[in-house]
Amino acid sequence: MASASIARSETGDPLLLTPGPLTTSKSVKEVMVHDWGSRDAAFIAINKAVLEGLPKIIHGEAEFVTVPMQGSGTFAVEAMLTTFVPRSGKVLVLVNGAYGLRAKKILDVAGRANIVHETAEDTPPDLVEIERLLSADPAITHVFAVHCETTSGIRNPVEAVAALTARLGRRLLIDAMSAFGALELDAREVAFDAVAASSNKCIQGVPGLGFVLARKTALAETKGNATTLVLDLHDQHQAISTTGQYRFTPPIHVIVAFHEALKEFWAEGGVAGRGERYADNARILIDGMRALGFETLLPEARQAPIIVTFHMPKDPAFAFQRFYDALKDRGYVIYPGKLTVADSFRIGCIGDLYAKDMKAFVGVVAEVLKDMGVGLKSAA
Amino acid sequence: MASASIARSETGDPLLLTPGPLTTSKSVKEVMVHDWGSRDAAFIAINKAVLEGLPKIIHGEAEFVTVPMQGSGTFAVEAMLTTFVPRSGKVLVLVNGAYGLRAKKILDVAGRANIVHETAEDTPPDLVEIERLLSADPAITHVFAVHCETTSGIRNPVEAVAALTARLGRRLLIDAMSAFGALELDAREVAFDAVAASSNKCIQGVPGLGFVLARKTALAETKGNATTLVLDLHDQHQAISTTGQYRFTPPIHVIVAFHEALKEFWAEGGVAGRGERYADNARILIDGMRALGFETLLPEARQAPIIVTFHMPKDPAFAFQRFYDALKDRGYVIYPGKLTVADSFRIGCIGDLYAKDMKAFVGVVAEVLKDMGVGLKSAA
Ligand SMILES: Cc1ncc(COP(=O)(O)O)c(C=O)c1O
Ligand SMILES: Cc1ncc(COP(=O)(O)O)c(C=O)c1O
Repeated sequence: MASASIARSETGDPLLLTPGPLTTSKSVKEVMVHDWGSRDAAFIAINKAVLEGLPKIIHGEAEFVTVPMQGSGTFAVEAMLTTFVPRSGKVLVLVNGAYGLRAKKILDVAGRANIVHETAEDTPPDLVEIERLLSADPAITHVFAVHCETTSGIRNPVEAVAALTARLGRRLLIDAMSAFGALELDAREVAFDAVAASSNKCIQGVPGLGFVLARKTALAETKGNATTLVLDLHDQHQAISTTGQYRFTPPIHVIVAFHEALKEFWAEGGVAGRGERYADNARILIDGMRALGFETLLPEARQAPIIVTFHMPKDPAFAFQRFYDALKDRGYVIYPGKLTVADSFRIGCIGDLYAKDMKAFVGVVAEVLKDMGVGLKSAA
Repeated sequence: MASASIARSETGDPLLLTPGPLTTSKSVKEVMVHDWGSRDAAFIAINKAVLEGLPKIIHGEAEFVTVPMQGSGTFAVEAMLTTFVPRSGKVLVLVNGAYGLRAKKILDVAGRANIVHETAEDTPPDLVEIERLLSADPAITHVFAVHCETTSGIRNPVEAVAALTARLGRRLLIDAMSAFGALELDAREVAFDAVAASSNKCIQGVPGLGFVLARKTALAETKGNATTLVLDLHDQHQAISTTGQYRFTPPIHVIVAFHEALKEFWAEGGVAGRGERYADNARILIDGMRALGFETLLPEARQAPIIVTFHMPKDPAFAFQRFYDALKDRGYVIYPGKLTVADSFRIGCIGDLYAKDMKAFVGVVAEVLKDMGVGLKSAA
């Protein structure tokens, strides 16, 4: 039952089964076919709606404020770290993948003292060890954690880390990039000072805008911490809250697309609705791939429904580049691995993708394996 | 001959007579209605064409390389200053407006020593004074100049500043934001290490991407200078030149729009063609406004054809907000003043605007003045 049809998005593009840039809806992209002045009342209203709406996603309307930071997600993470951690601060960085390591690098370059608690890419941080490290070093002011470490797709236990951090009187900063909007993060129950995310992950906007949801009381203490002008969230917030305008030319088209994406996010039922669709996508993908003989890196309990890491099959007939190209030819873009613990590849479940797309994808994988002469069930 | 027609761009938007965000062509915006993976071959080719094409604008194909920096123009300026000026460096900042001052602020926040040579907003820097300052202080490693200071619209003498800086053995960094692509800057004749600009000025892309054209030999010396990860141009260049990819998720839609904008820029004849259209626009605007009794801040010789500052009329019947709103109602967005030397407003000549638009605009200004009961010719 070979099929010659090529998968295409609403706008005729390959489906991106990647953790971003990802497939966005046609309506999100179409709103960009206009120009606005940055002082334009319509744009100012759009920007305001975006900034005011985001804290609702973490149930943080009362205590949190959105500080936008143009650029990719890393710009928001660097802005968060260098604004919230004073020059005399010290950070315990929880690392189990590339994004934890990147945070450490940011701190090193910016001259902020830090120590690392590193676990393997398939292993969550060790709470006992965190408690030991924090208790042993009173100079540590902040803990940094990644919610879903996209390197493997692991869901880190931010709730438990937050409780421990708070109990020991330290402050938590979260990189929720790939989880934000799909995994629940409830600021009424989880204590943190700031969380960074971006336009182009689970909210399904186009890339070019990061943002930090900042606890108002904590942000108020950050004046003068920053070591750059553009990444200074205190200064950015000050300007936007007094003038309604960005300090520098905003990426207007990206913001307007993000506004539309947020409307679609709420229409789908917010975190619950979107998280459910992604969980469905992940379920179909994992079940389907397992039925073909693939093995996931992570056990169920650690797997976030964002991106799934599969072990590279051992059958010598399987060549990843051929697999990748054959899928690309049929309209599906997947993601190479980034792991050190295992030879692997990754498939994303986020973006404007639905159960039917994941089912069709698994079907195409089966065909491609057949074409390659790979007999996974026995070989894997 | 009152006209009830409302000016609209190709996509039905008000015409932006501002220095950015500005009116872009419909075709530039329409290419954004797609998705691309960042590792997608088509996107990588587009990105490569953008990066390879930009140095041609300064005739710097042999000696210069493009280092993109997502974010607005200020991100590119901060990246340029903090990458090129070592921590032990010292900068002479030439200031005659807000953008020179902003560069000084960037240097202060980033901990780079600097001194300022400031002149009034309608006055170019004093070459004799620059020579005196550089001769007196051997610690000064770099000079920073703004090509067109958008605060007033003045064209600063970067060629003369470059010759002097080179003669005294120092390095020049240029913020050419609002001039790039419209005013000639010939790297074969003007000596500088780097020039910063952005997607959303005279190249007429959408906002969200800055870039620095860097002299290869100078960039090679900057390793380890940067005090941030995201703004490190050496690191950014290293990654892009070895992998063809950005270090972090690129603002794909903005880059693809910029690629289209560059095609349209070259089709118009590059700097010569675009510069001529803007010069025409400025000529029609200035002549028309003068005929109505308005006075420009700058004499001809100092006026760049980018944005024109007009004195606020003294007639008490003239209320700027009413003037602004009436023009907006008829489809034209102008720009408030930012000057300290004079009460003023500004009108931009750049973007997807043509002689017919400027003529129509002047006609509408005449109507609005009449409605307001302003008799400029006698009152100004
Ligand atoms: C957890 C996490 N943090 C940070 C980033 C960096 O985001 P960006 O590539 O937009 O800079 C990513 C990107 O995938 C991510 O997944
Ligand atoms: C000369 C100059 N430099 C820097 C900037 C800052 O650019 P952005 O607003 O894109 O950050 C501008 C913006 O108008 C400018 O005109």
